Amino acid sequence: MDDKWLTRVCRSIEPLREEAMAAARERLDSLTKPPGSLGALERLAERLSGIAGAMPPPLGKKVVVVMAGDHGVCEEGVSAFPQAVTEQMVLNFLRGGAAVNVFAKHAGADVVCVDMGVAATIDHPGLVASKIAPGTANMTKGPAMTREQALSALSAGVELVGRLAGDGVRLIAVGEMGIGNSTAAAAVTSALLGVPPEASVGRGTGVDDAGLARKRDAVARALAANGLAAGAGASGPEGALETLAKVGGFELAGIAGVCLGAGVYRVPVVVDGYISTAAALVASRLSPHVASYLIASHRSEEPGHGVVLDALGLEPMLELGMRLGEGTGAALSLRIVEAAVDVLGSMATFASAGVSGKLE
Amino acid sequence: MDDKWLTRVCRSIEPLREEAMAAARERLDSLTKPPGSLGALERLAERLSGIAGAMPPPLGKKVVVVMAGDHGVCEEGVSAFPQAVTEQMVLNFLRGGAAVNVFAKHAGADVVCVDMGVAATIDHPGLVASKIAPGTANMTKGPAMTREQALSALSAGVELVGRLAGDGVRLIAVGEMGIGNSTAAAAVTSALLGVPPEASVGRGTGVDDAGLARKRDAVARALAANGLAAGAGASGPEGALETLAKVGGFELAGIAGVCLGAGVYRVPVVVDGYISTAAALVASRLSPHVASYLIASHRSEEPGHGVVLDALGLEPMLELGMRLGEGTGAALSLRIVEAAVDVLGSMATFASAGVSGKLE
Repeated sequence: MDDKWLTRVCRSIEPLREEAMAAARERLDSLTKPPGSLGALERLAERLSGIAGAMPPPLGKKVVVVMAGDHGVCEEGVSAFPQAVTEQMVLNFLRGGAAVNVFAKHAGADVVCVDMGVAATIDHPGLVASKIAPGTANMTKGPAMTREQALSALSAGVELVGRLAGDGVRLIAVGEMGIGNSTAAAAVTSALLGVPPEASVGRGTGVDDAGLARKRDAVARALAANGLAAGAGASGPEGALETLAKVGGFELAGIAGVCLGAGVYRVPVVVDGYISTAAALVASRLSPHVASYLIASHRSEEPGHGVVLDALGLEPMLELGMRLGEGTGAALSLRIVEAAVDVLGSMATFASAGVSGKLE
Repeated sequence: MDDKWLTRVCRSIEPLREEAMAAARERLDSLTKPPGSLGALERLAERLSGIAGAMPPPLGKKVVVVMAGDHGVCEEGVSAFPQAVTEQMVLNFLRGGAAVNVFAKHAGADVVCVDMGVAATIDHPGLVASKIAPGTANMTKGPAMTREQALSALSAGVELVGRLAGDGVRLIAVGEMGIGNSTAAAAVTSALLGVPPEASVGRGTGVDDAGLARKRDAVARALAANGLAAGAGASGPEGALETLAKVGGFELAGIAGVCLGAGVYRVPVVVDGYISTAAALVASRLSPHVASYLIASHRSEEPGHGVVLDALGLEPMLELGMRLGEGTGAALSLRIVEAAVDVLGSMATFASAGVSGKLE
């Protein structure tokens, strides 16, 4: 992987197909409901048509991709849980015992668990092995990863979408596991959006006030150590790649790759909480059309999540006050996305159902 | 049906079962996730345990109940659609062509369509016939229905829940169809909550500015004609029954009955938009424990909906800007409610999965 690969991938991502979107708009207004009355679902149905370049867009297999990685910044005491929990939870995903497994089951979706950089060797036939390295370096002391590692992780994400699309998957939810990764997401958010750690850092899995202060301090030191002072607002594709490498994480980079893959393979990707949305922000800085391929699922309790959603211009569907990650919010949204697609395919029109239209 | 029947029904509704709720809280804190990280879903899982009196609560069949009725107030030009659309849409529900049919399919739920008072004779084997009368009277000129009719409609709702529960239904979504019924919902809201028509009346299926002015005027005249001046805040069970009869609708009364039935038969009911939530408010005034058996699905575009949700103390899960009714928002929420139940039944515990707990 090199910069040329990334440039080629990003250039291959086209805008949504206008013709299919226009057909969707026309169909939506012919269906037996007051025009616009399905609100955000109508805009979603239109966008999904533009993504697939087909009206109605095809329904098919669904998966929840959970990317896992460890974080050197854990040395700074930024999490309420020990780093070993990353590996333990990956095993829990593989055995079907986590919240995301329950929600994926109700969504009719398989869980695809990817080792992007867990700091332990996990030998399990169900695990997708894409380990870049056993955890990132401590970003308060220098770059979390090399530029080459960031490119490799992006590539793993893009390739995964290609394999899934080839397998008949038509809708992807994406989430993550990685003790310490809300600190990385906050650093990425501060660097790319120029917001101070006070606005980007939250309690993650539940740190107390002292832990919150340590997280903010770690983010400020990471930005300083890597020449990414908050407020500088690293810009353009080059700034995004640099930010990802210096203060990101392997699972964040993998998810950014999945978001690029959404555009490359024209498969909608539903992003989850703060960490995966920060990764989506990186992808949207690498290629300007990426955000139009992404669907926001829920608004998490993490204060930085709303900041990133706004920057991406994405409106979440669920307001549940969740803060778990794993892809849980994205998994809960999959049936709603499918229902929006099926409005186009299955609803009767005013004409076909013999229903009177609006009074003049 | 008489007042004694209603008193007996309302008195039979007990508080949620504390023991099952305590067991749910304990279980939630033992599962492999940071405590509280599933936000509203944890509170929902706890409440569902208290409703069923079992932890985990049973999963079973799901239905979407759509209650239909016509409204004499349509004579006042309060809707963007002609009254005939109520009958036409009931036929559309029965043939499976409406939005609620599509969403119910994705929720794995059957649609149960009930004629509570459509102003047309509909002969269809799939329709539940509970017609009280062919449409209400024009409430701007006097009571929409008699007290006896209101009691009969409430009874039909309670009995329907009894039959469904006997059939193995463990989760009910409820919605409505009735041209003119957002005007009735606004009148009920103004009467029960003491808010002026400016706060209770919205555009419904999409009236223009002149139509909005006519709706507000119609609500003000209906309240005056029935001695329910906005701001009086009709209180207590007697005030609720009186309000329902004077400015409600047959489908509103039926839905209020379904909400009572939720408490009687201990089956959770997911309410939909403004009209069904206003009906739920009536039920909650008839019996104080009813609201704890109800689940809010979405926050609609109708401005009065949030006012009623707040009065009931219910937090919606979906923010989609929908304003269609039919039970569409409630149907979209059913899988999420099931997933919340299944968190209790299917997730691994820290102990069973060998996952480390929070650092001290």
